[in-house]
Amino acid sequence: MKCYQDQIDMMALLGEIAPLARTLANNDTDKALQIVADVLPGAVIEGFPSGSKAWTWTIPQRWEISGATIKANGETLVDAAWNPLHVINYSQPFKGAVTHAELLKHLCTHPERPQAIPFSFSFYEEIWGFSIPHEWLSRFTSDSYEVEINSRFEEGNLNTLSLFIPGDSKETFVICSNICHPVQVNDSLTGVAVAVDIAKRLLARTSRKYSYLILVVPETIGSIAFLANHPEIIKASVGGFFSEMLGTDGPLVGQRTRRGDSYWDKLLGDVLLNSNLPHQVVNFLKSAGNDEKVLDSPGVDIPTFSLTRYPYPEYHTSDDNINLINIDRLREARDLLQKIIDFAEEDYIPVLNQPGPVFLSGYGLYPNWRDDPSLLPIWQSFIDVMYSIDGVHSVVELAAMRQIPISHFFYWTDAFAEKGLLTKSPFVLRRKAT
Amino acid sequence: MKCYQDQIDMMALLGEIAPLARTLANNDTDKALQIVADVLPGAVIEGFPSGSKAWTWTIPQRWEISGATIKANGETLVDAAWNPLHVINYSQPFKGAVTHAELLKHLCTHPERPQAIPFSFSFYEEIWGFSIPHEWLSRFTSDSYEVEINSRFEEGNLNTLSLFIPGDSKETFVICSNICHPVQVNDSLTGVAVAVDIAKRLLARTSRKYSYLILVVPETIGSIAFLANHPEIIKASVGGFFSEMLGTDGPLVGQRTRRGDSYWDKLLGDVLLNSNLPHQVVNFLKSAGNDEKVLDSPGVDIPTFSLTRYPYPEYHTSDDNINLINIDRLREARDLLQKIIDFAEEDYIPVLNQPGPVFLSGYGLYPNWRDDPSLLPIWQSFIDVMYSIDGVHSVVELAAMRQIPISHFFYWTDAFAEKGLLTKSPFVLRRKAT
Amino acid sequence: MKCYQDQIDMMALLGEIAPLARTLANNDTDKALQIVADVLPGAVIEGFPSGSKAWTWTIPQRWEISGATIKANGETLVDAAWNPLHVINYSQPFKGAVTHAELLKHLCTHPERPQAIPFSFSFYEEIWGFSIPHEWLSRFTSDSYEVEINSRFEEGNLNTLSLFIPGDSKETFVICSNICHPVQVNDSLTGVAVAVDIAKRLLARTSRKYSYLILVVPETIGSIAFLANHPEIIKASVGGFFSEMLGTDGPLVGQRTRRGDSYWDKLLGDVLLNSNLPHQVVNFLKSAGNDEKVLDSPGVDIPTFSLTRYPYPEYHTSDDNINLINIDRLREARDLLQKIIDFAEEDYIPVLNQPGPVFLSGYGLYPNWRDDPSLLPIWQSFIDVMYSIDGVHSVVELAAMRQIPISHFFYWTDAFAEKGLLTKSPFVLRRKAT
Repeated sequence: MKCYQDQIDMMALLGEIAPLARTLANNDTDKALQIVADVLPGAVIEGFPSGSKAWTWTIPQRWEISGATIKANGETLVDAAWNPLHVINYSQPFKGAVTHAELLKHLCTHPERPQAIPFSFSFYEEIWGFSIPHEWLSRFTSDSYEVEINSRFEEGNLNTLSLFIPGDSKETFVICSNICHPVQVNDSLTGVAVAVDIAKRLLARTSRKYSYLILVVPETIGSIAFLANHPEIIKASVGGFFSEMLGTDGPLVGQRTRRGDSYWDKLLGDVLLNSNLPHQVVNFLKSAGNDEKVLDSPGVDIPTFSLTRYPYPEYHTSDDNINLINIDRLREARDLLQKIIDFAEEDYIPVLNQPGPVFLSGYGLYPNWRDDPSLLPIWQSFIDVMYSIDGVHSVVELAAMRQIPISHFFYWTDAFAEKGLLTKSPFVLRRKAT
Repeated sequence: MKCYQDQIDMMALLGEIAPLARTLANNDTDKALQIVADVLPGAVIEGFPSGSKAWTWTIPQRWEISGATIKANGETLVDAAWNPLHVINYSQPFKGAVTHAELLKHLCTHPERPQAIPFSFSFYEEIWGFSIPHEWLSRFTSDSYEVEINSRFEEGNLNTLSLFIPGDSKETFVICSNICHPVQVNDSLTGVAVAVDIAKRLLARTSRKYSYLILVVPETIGSIAFLANHPEIIKASVGGFFSEMLGTDGPLVGQRTRRGDSYWDKLLGDVLLNSNLPHQVVNFLKSAGNDEKVLDSPGVDIPTFSLTRYPYPEYHTSDDNINLINIDRLREARDLLQKIIDFAEEDYIPVLNQPGPVFLSGYGLYPNWRDDPSLLPIWQSFIDVMYSIDGVHSVVELAAMRQIPISHFFYWTDAFAEKGLLTKSPFVLRRKAT
Repeated sequence: MKCYQDQIDMMALLGEIAPLARTLANNDTDKALQIVADVLPGAVIEGFPSGSKAWTWTIPQRWEISGATIKANGETLVDAAWNPLHVINYSQPFKGAVTHAELLKHLCTHPERPQAIPFSFSFYEEIWGFSIPHEWLSRFTSDSYEVEINSRFEEGNLNTLSLFIPGDSKETFVICSNICHPVQVNDSLTGVAVAVDIAKRLLARTSRKYSYLILVVPETIGSIAFLANHPEIIKASVGGFFSEMLGTDGPLVGQRTRRGDSYWDKLLGDVLLNSNLPHQVVNFLKSAGNDEKVLDSPGVDIPTFSLTRYPYPEYHTSDDNINLINIDRLREARDLLQKIIDFAEEDYIPVLNQPGPVFLSGYGLYPNWRDDPSLLPIWQSFIDVMYSIDGVHSVVELAAMRQIPISHFFYWTDAFAEKGLLTKSPFVLRRKAT
């Protein structure tokens, strides 16, 4: 498969954002978005005030923490200063003495990964609590504990980053990724790194068929807030992808759009199948579910596929850090997503300029597969290509209908076009009427 | 599954009609129809004169029998007074002496059920004969027999019963059952009992979405006679069911409509699948075939499914009597058919009032399945419901498309409607253009 | 299955054409076409000048050979006078001495069939060479050889034969076969014999629903030349078949049209399935590919199936001669193709004249399968026929939808029509818009 040149140092970007204790809305999230904005000229950071409505949802308050500790007999057992994951995300403030039994109800651990701090959160239920390595439970031998959580809920903005890259058509493809998940990297910063790298490549091009919207948001509520306030984006959007968890060694998981047989599903299926990489393709919401649940929801209806390497053992723990990331795996995923975009950019409706099978020998088009065996698969696709061109469907659609690689189809139709035997009729995906 | 309250004493109704020697047209059939009419205020008994045409069919004469015997050496071997099944239904009259060999050609037996009298009939071929238990053959030791069949063919009416129950729409659902089959009960009186019980329930309601036509007729020719004379019923009918043989212990057999993928097929499939009762679903005319062969024939085109417990060993013999009927089995079948009607009555097109996934926590809609595990299946259906609502298809249609229980779908869309998140757009099934 | 009477002596026709050294364009090909024209009054021989364009193709020059030998030490090792297959078809002229090593590069053999001369050709690559039995290689013991190939490339016509048989509609069915393949018979003259026999039968009829075009051409370039110069034929053509290799004992191979689900595919599938002959049905271009690659190509779009008995061991060798042909096998294939045509000719849209199931007994239509068990399959098809008639689809289409034999369907609908119960609404297949 084609390998693309890096447009940014993805590992450096991950390293810069990783330590920040990002969440739905707080100062660290704002800093992280600013780091992304700094590498994406033209990007806009847009805030939505807490308490305002977005469809059926309400924008939450910002949440800051200035300290959180558990002490017993003067000894500090847990301190959020050691790791922001130690306090449950969006925990209520609390101060007081609690018994051992009471404290246990407020401690989250991950028994299967006993040395890691689990990532715990409670955005909509009002609780307080801590997360600790499972192994630490044995240190809690006292009968009573002094607990203090200095968290603050503040009015203010939930922020998002967007960059609109205009194309020749208003039809827009949304590239969505998440900025949240404090101090974690694979989930979900790898999706941000890939999105930025792709955005830079698209920006560098002199023209694009489609317009693109890069969207970096806190999970779920971020895309809801943005789209509820940008109906014009919804109206123009013909597709999208969400990506994250791309830097580990597990197989790639392509998750289809809600419709399951959309244009993007054909591209996703082709690119994964012909990647020769370990992968699976699953139906909508049958793997990790993220902002495609927003983009591809009823009334929004942007056909959105996702790409991840979910699951992986370090998921939602303090072990999901920069050391986990394999730049080669990240590049593979980036290449696949870029390839999907580029096939869509190149796609056209092949219209033969004359009836009948093309006289290959007469145009020097007969591939010399006897001398170059690598041409054999291409030659074997000839019949399928020649006899499926119908002047109606695009290359991507025809390749999917015949179940041959999109790249083989382009091989032949591009060659025909070069010889004047075929006209490339423009193809732009339009938004389906709801 | 929901259990409905009995509206009539179904066993009592069966007991009252059972002894009558009903057939296509005779006095006992008329008495049976009058018994049904007495419990269904507004029901109309309508006659069609023998010799008149109904499409390609001719209404047969009435058939009465005043005596039928076989005697040998002064001893009576068979007497129709013992059981009306002893003489072949619609047998020609006959009087004379016959040899043993000749007589045997006119005797029907059922070797696999040697003590039972088989139900034999010949409506369109002119023959005479008797039915006897297979065991009785050994009694026929004489060389010659005196045979007398005093049957009469008379001009007169073939009668049917119908009750039209008007609804808010003229679109009509036909509930068809048979009154014929002399002294037998499971086949086909159980269908009449269920139809009457359902009719009473529908009558008791202050409003109905659909109109209903209860039709109690002799098999095949009865529905042909009625429909050939009521084209306005055909024109308004959007569906129907035929039922009989519902009171025995065998598994339920749902038989699809001719189209096989109609609205009613979706309902039939859902209700049987989620009944947790032993059952199978088969294609049109792949199980017992009855008046659905008329209702769902070309040119009539009323999509008609059927429900039976066919086959059963006592079928078409004197053993098919009131002792065979299990009231619990009958109620199960009644409940299933009523459930299908009620899902159709309740059905609507769910239209979300806003884009995006519904914020369940914000509306108190998150089912507490951790405390109440019975809610878990409902919770697991949420994603399927949330992401399939399209503003076009009805609840019944969407549930079938997603293969989740219709009741789960209503759980969510009803709750959304109650919170003002969803509008119930009216749905009335229309008749398909032929 | 119905057997048709021979219209011509197919073996005699094969015997007359067999010895000619036919190819794309030469004198022997012209003689062969004239032999066909002599038995088909009205047939037109039409030439297309070498060098002229036909779509993307160029009409090749004529090729004549006046002698071709290989000699060593004064001994003649190979002489084209012995068998025209000894020189590669369309070989360049050559004269000179060559080494043993050089000669070997110009010798074709067929190791798996060591006593046969393989049929070799090179229409578009300019080479010279000979074909010999593999066993002969041992005779080439000399170090040098005298080679002489007196072949000539001449300007002139590539000739084709066509016969247009007008019908009541302009919609045309094309029956295509090949005249080329020097001195070979099964491939492809058997297709010509069958086509001529069918043509004679069609001509003898007083009326035909469809028009027919009999086309006898050199493979590929022949049909390209003809159709490129006859766009009016393309515009009127609704179907076609290509046949050859029909006279050996192997199973029949039906090859579907490009669409795969066309009207002709239904006929092909039915006729093969109900023939009780060994056969298989494969997708377009998944068996031997011939002029259906032209007729059913994009822009020509004549749905074309083929029938062959490919493969067979003598294929493309000197063993493919008249002794290989079994007249019974040839007749079987002819009968199948004629049956397909006749079903299409007879096809109509059955429209019932009244609603409801037909009262069989009332019209004497109940088949007496108890006395005549051969009627049982017909009786078992009654329900499928009765309940699938929709007033929209034709008999052929309905039979395919219900997967019952077309002949069973006609049995019932013809009988209904005779009794005035059904109207035969005309059905003529129209050309699909491209």
